[in-house]
Order: sequence, then C-alpha cells, then structure tokens
Amino acid sequence: MNGKTAKVDKLPTIRRLPMYLRILRNFAEKGQERVSSGQLAEVMNIDSILVRKDLVLTGIVGTPRIGYNISDLISSVEGFLGWGERLDVFLVGAGHLGTAILGYREMHDNSHRIVAAFDKDPAKLNNTIHGVRVHDIDEMPQLVEKMNVRLAILTVHPEDAQEVTDFLVKAGIKAIWNFTSVSLDVPESVTTHNEDLLSGLAVLSVRMARRV
Amino acid sequence: MNGKTAKVDKLPTIRRLPMYLRILRNFAEKGQERVSSGQLAEVMNIDSILVRKDLVLTGIVGTPRIGYNISDLISSVEGFLGWGERLDVFLVGAGHLGTAILGYREMHDNSHRIVAAFDKDPAKLNNTIHGVRVHDIDEMPQLVEKMNVRLAILTVHPEDAQEVTDFLVKAGIKAIWNFTSVSLDVPESVTTHNEDLLSGLAVLSVRMARRV
Repeated sequence: MNGKTAKVDKLPTIRRLPMYLRILRNFAEKGQERVSSGQLAEVMNIDSILVRKDLVLTGIVGTPRIGYNISDLISSVEGFLGWGERLDVFLVGAGHLGTAILGYREMHDNSHRIVAAFDKDPAKLNNTIHGVRVHDIDEMPQLVEKMNVRLAILTVHPEDAQEVTDFLVKAGIKAIWNFTSVSLDVPESVTTHNEDLLSGLAVLSVRMARRV
Repeated sequence: MNGKTAKVDKLPTIRRLPMYLRILRNFAEKGQERVSSGQLAEVMNIDSILVRKDLVLTGIVGTPRIGYNISDLISSVEGFLGWGERLDVFLVGAGHLGTAILGYREMHDNSHRIVAAFDKDPAKLNNTIHGVRVHDIDEMPQLVEKMNVRLAILTVHPEDAQEVTDFLVKAGIKAIWNFTSVSLDVPESVTTHNEDLLSGLAVLSVRMARRV
C-alpha cells in the first residue's frame, strides 16, 4: 500500500473525532473526570475495540480498568486535529448553504471563526449574516493578507466553482473546504476536501437496505 | 470483530460510491463504453488497488486489460445502493440548510425526490421552495400514508431535533437523514445517519497539518 491508500484508511477515524470531542466536552461539563472505551463505544454506537483504535491515532492510550482522563483525551484529540488554537476562516458564497454554515455554532466551539463572507451579488454586500459581514469578492486578495486567513469554505454555485477557486488560489488561500460537487483543479500546494452530500445518503441507503 | 465493526469498515467505500457514479455517468454521456481502474483512480485521486476493492463490494469484477463495462458498473453501484428506483423523501425544517438541500439538483439525478417539505413557521406554510410545497408539520402523519414516504431529511434547529424525531417515528418514518448535530434517540426499527459537518473539517485539518 502506498501513502495515498494509507491516508484514506484513517478517514473513518478522523471523521469520528469531532463526535468524540462533543461527547467528551459534554461529560466534562457534567463534572466527569474519567471515561472508559466501553462508555464511549455505547454513546458512539460502535465497538469498544474500535474506540481504542480511534483514540490511539491521536497518540493516547487508556489505562486498563481506569480508562482515560477526559481532559487529557480532549487535548489529545484537539492536538491531533490542530483545533486547540483559533483559526480564522473565510466563507465564499453567501447563499442558503453559506448562510446555514455561518449560523452553525459548533464551528466556534472548535476555535474556528468565520471572519468574513464573500459574494458577488450586490444586494448582499455589506450586509451582516450571523454577525459576519459580506464583502465583494474583489476585496478578498487584500483581506487574505490583512486578516491572515488561509482556509476558505466554498459554497458558490457549481458552475462558478472552478473560476472562484482559481481566484482564491491566486489570492493566497491554501485550503478549500469544497461544498460544491465539482472536482476542483488546484496546485499541489493547496489542500482541498470535498464535502459530498450524497456520501451520507449512500451510507443511509445501505443501512436501510440491509435492515429490511 | 463483530457486525458493528465490520459495517463501519466499509464506510469509506460506501461514501465514495456517489462520486464513482458521477464520474461514470459523465464518461457514459461522452460516449465512453469501458473504463479501467487506473483511469478511475486518477479522477478519484486514490490508488487503483483501492478502486478495485471499492467496486468489488458492489459485486462487480473488472477484466484485466479490458477494465469495466461502464453501464454494467453503473448498474452494479446503483443496485448496491438501491438507487435504481425512484425514492420519495420528506424534508423537515425549511430553513437555510433545508432550502439549500431542496435546491440540490443531484438528489434528482439519483432518483430521490423530495416530495414535500414541513415547517412550523406559519410564514413559510404553503410556499413553494424549488418546486416543493411547505406543509404544516401536523399534516405529516396523513401525508406519510398518502405519499408512501418512509425517509425524512431532518434540518430543524438542534433544540427541536428530538421532539420532531419522536413525531416522525410516530408518523411512520423509518429512516432519518439527520443534519442536526444531536444524537437522536430512535427505536431499533428506525435507521438514522448523522451528517456531521465537522467530520469534513476534521479531514481537511489533518490534511493541512500533514502537508505543512
């Protein structure tokens, strides 16, 4: 197996990590200090062996019979994801999906802050959506520098996706969280992740079929 | 490994299947009749061994040097997902996210049709969003029967998620595609899939960190 394949194999674990964080923070808020893999397995609805495998990836090993220290575990997961420190983000495309993401409170819980939104629709410019101002996309290059932002959420129409991406890359954006269903063409130095809405529907469809 | 774990391990493959369908339909539209795992691997940006493993899950094996027949491959993937036949779906919660999903054309390409939307906001009732009428949620029980719908997309506010879910289950809904970040409590007979927005951000974060 080459590097590409190995990376893909860790995907399910990585995708589960935010749910672990949510559960662990909830336990911590209730004053709980330790947690077992069995307890996490029950809430996550997966096997406890898998819980231990997931958490080892972040560099932490539980103690038999004692389990994990919750605050150590949170730090370990946050550290692995790089979510411990504040990260500022742009959102490009302030339509319905963009607006929904701007209102998504959990981004903030994880130190991600959408600091500016961009659109080309003159009617939206200078409006504020969930406390975030909508700028003309032409203002982006100077704001990338000024606000030191390297990550952009792409929620434009699919037909504009590649053109806007070229513009983002030229402006200095280094990572794109792509909500359009278009496969983006980017230089090697730019990281992308494609959010495929139909992936979730595929999982649900298979689960439904197997149960019937 | 028990059944639970085994199921989870197939998740990455299942999540990639819609992207295969998209690519294969695109090739078919251009008149291409056969495709190799290498060609698919390049477009998917994964290893060709993984492509062959993914496709075997749907019950198809390529012929060395010849590859796959594209229309057989599309049928195989569609058959595995149960996406060959029309499936009618409800959408519950016609806010920004719900509206974005109502406008998502790719659902239709895969024979999924959102046939009714529901909301509790009187201002939205009887409106039509992307051709779909918004009903009062109290009309759902009778529409479940009348329209023979068993799958609902849940895009309500997190604080309403469990209450609405209880109502859906009572009305006869058997599968819930959950876009709230709430872990839903449902009977064994109801299938759910939680769409965790932060999962994608986790994948992107890890990719970014490893590259730097």
